[in-house]
Amino acid sequence: VAVRIAVDLLGGDGAPAVVVDGALRACGTDPDLFLLLVGPTEVADEVVAALPPQDRPRVAVRGVRNAVGMADSPLRAVRTDTTVRAAIAAIVDGRADAVVSAGASGAAVTAAVHGLGRLPGVRRPALAATLPGLTRPVVLLDLGAGTEATAAVLVQHAALGAAYASVAHDLAAPRVGLLSIGGEEGKGDRLRRAADTVLAGIPMPAGAVYVGPVEGYDVALGGPADVVVTDGFTGNVLLKGIEGAYALATGHHRVSDPPLTVPRAATLLGVGGTVVVCHGAATGPDVASGIGLAARLHRLDVTSRLAAAARAQTVAEVRT
Amino acid sequence: VAVRIAVDLLGGDGAPAVVVDGALRACGTDPDLFLLLVGPTEVADEVVAALPPQDRPRVAVRGVRNAVGMADSPLRAVRTDTTVRAAIAAIVDGRADAVVSAGASGAAVTAAVHGLGRLPGVRRPALAATLPGLTRPVVLLDLGAGTEATAAVLVQHAALGAAYASVAHDLAAPRVGLLSIGGEEGKGDRLRRAADTVLAGIPMPAGAVYVGPVEGYDVALGGPADVVVTDGFTGNVLLKGIEGAYALATGHHRVSDPPLTVPRAATLLGVGGTVVVCHGAATGPDVASGIGLAARLHRLDVTSRLAAAARAQTVAEVRT
Repeated sequence: VAVRIAVDLLGGDGAPAVVVDGALRACGTDPDLFLLLVGPTEVADEVVAALPPQDRPRVAVRGVRNAVGMADSPLRAVRTDTTVRAAIAAIVDGRADAVVSAGASGAAVTAAVHGLGRLPGVRRPALAATLPGLTRPVVLLDLGAGTEATAAVLVQHAALGAAYASVAHDLAAPRVGLLSIGGEEGKGDRLRRAADTVLAGIPMPAGAVYVGPVEGYDVALGGPADVVVTDGFTGNVLLKGIEGAYALATGHHRVSDPPLTVPRAATLLGVGGTVVVCHGAATGPDVASGIGLAARLHRLDVTSRLAAAARAQTVAEVRT
Repeated sequence: VAVRIAVDLLGGDGAPAVVVDGALRACGTDPDLFLLLVGPTEVADEVVAALPPQDRPRVAVRGVRNAVGMADSPLRAVRTDTTVRAAIAAIVDGRADAVVSAGASGAAVTAAVHGLGRLPGVRRPALAATLPGLTRPVVLLDLGAGTEATAAVLVQHAALGAAYASVAHDLAAPRVGLLSIGGEEGKGDRLRRAADTVLAGIPMPAGAVYVGPVEGYDVALGGPADVVVTDGFTGNVLLKGIEGAYALATGHHRVSDPPLTVPRAATLLGVGGTVVVCHGAATGPDVASGIGLAARLHRLDVTSRLAAAARAQTVAEVRT
């Protein structure tokens, strides 16, 4: 099925070079992929020129010159005509099916919430990524779309994460865990104890099962849960800690085949469209795999399925 | 210099066997080490019987039969005559210089605060451990002595961590970082932004320098800071996440020489005595190295030096 991805040419530490590289790689691997390149026209023209002539009609260009830097306020994303805002607008206008950006995640979240809106009943969107695990993948969320969570936000993110795992990893009954610091009852901080009580009492969407508290160990290694929910501060710290641990393992031991890496792309859950945010230090292959992920999620109709999960969960909450 | 360590024979998943093993190993490596074994007399007698006759006078026994299980409330540690309470009491009575336990850390913290008191000006103690880092060690705290932190608690723990790094790692000017999710100004949650403002405005004890926000990556890999301060929830999740990442690296790649491990012992900072808590899944060598750490810290006079740092920091806070 043909899918059209709007790509933010000015997002990321290595932009635009690595984004151009990633876009070319993505076109090479998926013949049904169409790209809308959002950025300076001369940069987009480079991509077009580098493609075989028969592939050139697959690439369209939207000329935008402003970017959101890592040190800028995320609000810059919506206050000026930035690449990330224009990419999101392409979904709204019906010219793209999904967006990929390697820019500041705060800017992408702000632009997406502003342009696409939240799914009905969703208070705050969440960034989710899939870690490898020893035998099965683990979806971790939130990775920093928000920094202050309440029990209600954690509960909602648990439902979004369950639905995402069900779609993205084709799981019939995802096991959902709450990140805490000890599996025993009464362990954890006030926020986790409150969320645990709610999660234990309401049904999960997508056939998911709440398995209770899990620990940091279980996120990196996998095992007890397919989905682990936490606040955006803790999730971001944990993901970057695991990333640093792999870097140390690689540095000390020359472990490199296959390389141990944390996911280099996260999906924004809870907004009215498919948005993938790549790691700021993404390479060309990382951007290409982010584009591939966005295309796959669109083909799986992830946004409607997440909307259904959010609706089901809102109904469950009202009933309890 | 002779040093007397009270050892909790009933703490940890593998107790008493691994604690007995650890005690014997510790006696074998340090001729100036004296042990007070706190636990069932028949278990302690095993250690004594396994020692060469000339070493037996180095071991004393205090018979206690109650333990605090991982699922018990930490308050059990002080409400009944438990091994961890009796070990702490040995410091108070002058029969031991330091305590080592591989039992529930909450129980050890409760027993220590109850028996030894807090250092003057210290609101809450913190558990600190040293991670390897690529080129230099990194002290991370709090690892879960508390779960709800305020900016004032983070600031105080920054001072305790700085003093600890100065003593334990002989650093003249430890660099102290605040764990957050982005180095740029304005990033992080409300708690971190508030703590950052205070930390940037007051002097650090022990010649330490506050270097600002650092990320999860920097804890595992090291680099920008010698000491990283965070709340006990995040610190515990991060340490266990790094542990899981190493386990995954080892499992996938058979990396084992030298083994990548997180620290298996943490030091309780801010109480009136030297207390080392080993990982619940500690092995005999882990317990022996926890005993070695406790002996080294006592010889370095860590408690008085932390008390001086806490005093200096209280004065600095009053002045600002």
